[in-house]
Amino acid sequence: MNPINVGIIGVSGYTGLELVKMLITHPRFNLVYCANTEGQTTVSELHPCLFGVCDMPVESVDFQKASECALIFLALPHKTAMQTAKELLAQGIKVVDLSADYRLSAENYEDFYCPHEDLDNLSHAVYSLPELHGNIAKDALLVANPGCHVTASLLALAPFLSYIDLTQPIFIDSKTGVSGAGKSPSASVHYVSVNDNINCYNIIKHRHAVEIEQHASALCEAEVKVTFVPSLVPMTRGMLANVYATLKSDCDVAAIMEEFYANKPFVRVRNAPPHTKMTSGTNFADVYAQAHGNALVSLCAIDNLMRGASSQAVVNANIMMGLDEELGIPKMAYVP
Amino acid sequence: MNPINVGIIGVSGYTGLELVKMLITHPRFNLVYCANTEGQTTVSELHPCLFGVCDMPVESVDFQKASECALIFLALPHKTAMQTAKELLAQGIKVVDLSADYRLSAENYEDFYCPHEDLDNLSHAVYSLPELHGNIAKDALLVANPGCHVTASLLALAPFLSYIDLTQPIFIDSKTGVSGAGKSPSASVHYVSVNDNINCYNIIKHRHAVEIEQHASALCEAEVKVTFVPSLVPMTRGMLANVYATLKSDCDVAAIMEEFYANKPFVRVRNAPPHTKMTSGTNFADVYAQAHGNALVSLCAIDNLMRGASSQAVVNANIMMGLDEELGIPKMAYVP
Amino acid sequence: MNPINVGIIGVSGYTGLELVKMLITHPRFNLVYCANTEGQTTVSELHPCLFGVCDMPVESVDFQKASECALIFLALPHKTAMQTAKELLAQGIKVVDLSADYRLSAENYEDFYCPHEDLDNLSHAVYSLPELHGNIAKDALLVANPGCHVTASLLALAPFLSYIDLTQPIFIDSKTGVSGAGKSPSASVHYVSVNDNINCYNIIKHRHAVEIEQHASALCEAEVKVTFVPSLVPMTRGMLANVYATLKSDCDVAAIMEEFYANKPFVRVRNAPPHTKMTSGTNFADVYAQAHGNALVSLCAIDNLMRGASSQAVVNANIMMGLDEELGIPKMAYVP
Amino acid sequence: MNPINVGIIGVSGYTGLELVKMLITHPRFNLVYCANTEGQTTVSELHPCLFGVCDMPVESVDFQKASECALIFLALPHKTAMQTAKELLAQGIKVVDLSADYRLSAENYEDFYCPHEDLDNLSHAVYSLPELHGNIAKDALLVANPGCHVTASLLALAPFLSYIDLTQPIFIDSKTGVSGAGKSPSASVHYVSVNDNINCYNIIKHRHAVEIEQHASALCEAEVKVTFVPSLVPMTRGMLANVYATLKSDCDVAAIMEEFYANKPFVRVRNAPPHTKMTSGTNFADVYAQAHGNALVSLCAIDNLMRGASSQAVVNANIMMGLDEELGIPKMAYVP
Repeated sequence: MNPINVGIIGVSGYTGLELVKMLITHPRFNLVYCANTEGQTTVSELHPCLFGVCDMPVESVDFQKASECALIFLALPHKTAMQTAKELLAQGIKVVDLSADYRLSAENYEDFYCPHEDLDNLSHAVYSLPELHGNIAKDALLVANPGCHVTASLLALAPFLSYIDLTQPIFIDSKTGVSGAGKSPSASVHYVSVNDNINCYNIIKHRHAVEIEQHASALCEAEVKVTFVPSLVPMTRGMLANVYATLKSDCDVAAIMEEFYANKPFVRVRNAPPHTKMTSGTNFADVYAQAHGNALVSLCAIDNLMRGASSQAVVNANIMMGLDEELGIPKMAYVP
Repeated sequence: MNPINVGIIGVSGYTGLELVKMLITHPRFNLVYCANTEGQTTVSELHPCLFGVCDMPVESVDFQKASECALIFLALPHKTAMQTAKELLAQGIKVVDLSADYRLSAENYEDFYCPHEDLDNLSHAVYSLPELHGNIAKDALLVANPGCHVTASLLALAPFLSYIDLTQPIFIDSKTGVSGAGKSPSASVHYVSVNDNINCYNIIKHRHAVEIEQHASALCEAEVKVTFVPSLVPMTRGMLANVYATLKSDCDVAAIMEEFYANKPFVRVRNAPPHTKMTSGTNFADVYAQAHGNALVSLCAIDNLMRGASSQAVVNANIMMGLDEELGIPKMAYVP
Repeated sequence: MNPINVGIIGVSGYTGLELVKMLITHPRFNLVYCANTEGQTTVSELHPCLFGVCDMPVESVDFQKASECALIFLALPHKTAMQTAKELLAQGIKVVDLSADYRLSAENYEDFYCPHEDLDNLSHAVYSLPELHGNIAKDALLVANPGCHVTASLLALAPFLSYIDLTQPIFIDSKTGVSGAGKSPSASVHYVSVNDNINCYNIIKHRHAVEIEQHASALCEAEVKVTFVPSLVPMTRGMLANVYATLKSDCDVAAIMEEFYANKPFVRVRNAPPHTKMTSGTNFADVYAQAHGNALVSLCAIDNLMRGASSQAVVNANIMMGLDEELGIPKMAYVP
Repeated sequence: MNPINVGIIGVSGYTGLELVKMLITHPRFNLVYCANTEGQTTVSELHPCLFGVCDMPVESVDFQKASECALIFLALPHKTAMQTAKELLAQGIKVVDLSADYRLSAENYEDFYCPHEDLDNLSHAVYSLPELHGNIAKDALLVANPGCHVTASLLALAPFLSYIDLTQPIFIDSKTGVSGAGKSPSASVHYVSVNDNINCYNIIKHRHAVEIEQHASALCEAEVKVTFVPSLVPMTRGMLANVYATLKSDCDVAAIMEEFYANKPFVRVRNAPPHTKMTSGTNFADVYAQAHGNALVSLCAIDNLMRGASSQAVVNANIMMGLDEELGIPKMAYVP
């Protein structure tokens, strides 16, 4: 079978690195193009762990060169992403966008980010969290890849949407490792600030709350409101979303979870609370639910950079190109 | 003023060490007696960080020798604590017990621990979380010192008890550092298990849930039920309890918090979500609340070993002996 | 090509887990047998991160069943390893032993461990650190896989053995992550003991010093003495060995290093001091040397569980079975 | 006794914070002046852990206001420090400078930093590491406080200077926590870069090497050359310097160490390798030595921010003002 040429624009960051690691060993994708803003470097200069493994050049963005790719992954900041996607789509290149630019309705996007500059493509962009949206990405030209907090939250919440009393508050307490904040140095990611500490941030006002609400509402065709509380945990990777909600009536939450995710190769229904580390470096989402009277506790652990970004993006690309969704997707956790 | 002789039984563990550190520099207490099960050692052999600072002998428990103390701190496992307290109280020695043995009603205790062997003293034991119970410890012979998860949870919950709809679920998501699990080696506290990981444990069934329920109910004279979800965070110390509840109606939660803790020297009402590290090594509880419609988010950060155990115990001892509650209590955080 | 049946005895520990992760994806090896002392479990019960990935049974050791394997990896404590190896070799099964049992001369072994119980096989056992010993493992029935401190130390030291004044002290300061201490809980691997701390241990008297001395001496046919100082670093994996020695005369140490490791796919000569994390999860050894007058500083960073144990063992197995040494060996680092 | 008014210029950083914590509880010093470059803030805005503990104003530098102080601590970057010290000294204010500006001879300083702008005061500045230089600070107007790597290295090296063969290389392998790099965000202190990693940096060329050489040479009146290799360890605080040298002849290194530091209240001669954490938050230096034939291993563990900067500065200030050197100096380690 012919290899499928793919590229990455925005290769400098953590999610760019994870994409490289998957794509250079992927059985069908052939990574032929890597770009970032400055160019004139190589993958291993940006990511010295890949010295001798992937020394391919990194160029500044050039849509001419990009045209040899059938599909491009965008690991760019929001706004830059839509400016780039528009050009690529115009050339007939398929796009998996890891930014927020095509995840929200125009209205929601503009409330939380900035004016949207590509409403045309937004109208046909497909938001795909594979276990929840099935093969919706199959014929898509543009896939909006879900965010990390949202992926973990929706996977914990979705099985129970029809069992929850939506008139009562739904709380999501989502704990994230530091890599979720990106590679740019700042006071809040200084080792000394993070080590031996835990703190919440952007309580309620987090941009991901609206993404959860929009897509949870779509799933159950009812208005879902969430109170979202993220916290920063001293660990490099990993995310644990705890969903707290009120059940409408008694139900066997473990059985509901088990049934909802039957035959989903990348969701593991656990019989004990999941450890984020068991998913580290993989696309697995480990879920667990327990009820206490009408109080629901539903948990989902993921790797924020993999299932929360890069490996989910490659799964989506697999689906878009008609491949098996499991192709080239890591399952060996970074344990110990 | 005469020094007051005090002792520690159970000096080997983390809370024993913290007691020593406070008592050897306390302006009025004079640490004259340290004991553990085996004896025949010294404080600095047990805690090499105190080499040259406190080399006093550690003896096996001897009630004759203990009798030179006006007050003794018990940093013992449950069950052993009540067996020891009974003897000390019989000799007229006041006791601050850091275990669970006198924190619960007999019924609740026996449901979660074991048969109670000292019902006589349980009947007059005083459960004292100073900001919530005032000077209740003043004339007490026996104070039950609250647990760490419970201290953080009650301090976040108490200001809102009359504003919360108690018929709806109250969720408490409480994150703890590893020292809360004690000094005994086990698979779950192995560095490799904890590092770069987060996980929940003992969901709902945690023994501290009943302690929260009993004492929150007493505070508001109504039945309070909580769904308690603890998680283990890769940090040595620190605890962050997030209380999630449903408000009966709109209210200014920040103002309620501010007023509730006015003039409390050891509770700091913050205008941003607290960092556990800012309380590390101190008796401070840093609190913060925010509402989202009728959804309440109330947070409390403490040092699990200090405010959650040893420094709160010394505050209680200060109150019992008629001293200023702030005497000898650390306020300088382990920051950076 | 036919798959080659292999097995692992001692699958419960960290190195057992790493072996499983490589062998279930290896292009030629077919993992058909896993055993530990107790048996009656599965790989994913022992290592829950592999739930849904490798649920194969783990049996107690049974030499009958082992006989379907052409080669077995022993990830056992010393002494148990030689008792097991003897039986396997008697059945014609090839063995890669990850313990210390066949690494030393009988004399050295008995000085540091215990009486040797398998002198027959010790006489033909092959100690193989591939870059230093070439294809010596090719026809071996029994390979002694080098230890982690020794691998890092020898890779830093070997290029300079003929340039060093062996009459002067050679110091090796080797820093290790906690996984090197194994999975058994103990006070020294308690999270609270390790976190935010660094300390040396077993200075000079470390068992690995004699292994370094024996094999460095063999490489240069002269007596090499080292002063070995290990330290425990708060990290899960990783090892950094700093070799400090006196050069006989001026020389270009970077060029010597470069030439010595030319065309070695798993040694990367770096132009800046290596970071252990860049080798994490891989078989890479990253080396770097610098001189200061006649003072030599030579560094080697590895993953203690991979290059220091399991991946080096699979490389050795590849060589023993006539396969390409790079087959199935991870090169994608656990970064970020 | 009258309080002695003191101030801090450069209160924003980690060492500034540690100075505040000691000075606001010091029995004789009265902290009356805090400044940084921008001013218009308070100590607790800069250091939120001190909220409610020290809310005093922080002003921009004003030499008029500084004049109410008898002594000022400078916690400033090099170059700014000497510009400030010059003005303060001209007003008769004593200065403890925590920067490098007065630590080196003019020649050494200008080789490694920049042109020296205050040669007049450099000529009478006193470099004081109290255990090595005795009461030399007693009548000083200006004390140059030693750096962290240098303090640990000299304390390990000094007892053996007359026993070492100075014609052979002396290696110093010094491991530091991240706070030593200061509070400014950068790629190298990003949590993700540091966590689960160890690496050497600035090998040999480190500015502290020359400081060690100059002051070790002065102590033994002979030329001392060192090969200095620092490494960055994933911990907030702590420093462990390992000195490796060649002894001229057999000697009892433990006894030499013991005698050298007899009656020094802040040096603890240990009978096992020290843990950095046991000194955390204190002015203690924990030392240990062992010989292997003519190979010397001498270790010193300190808290890089306390003994390596701020607490040593307060000890020096105590000596300068004729106070007991132990006054107000922390001895309670941040353990656990």
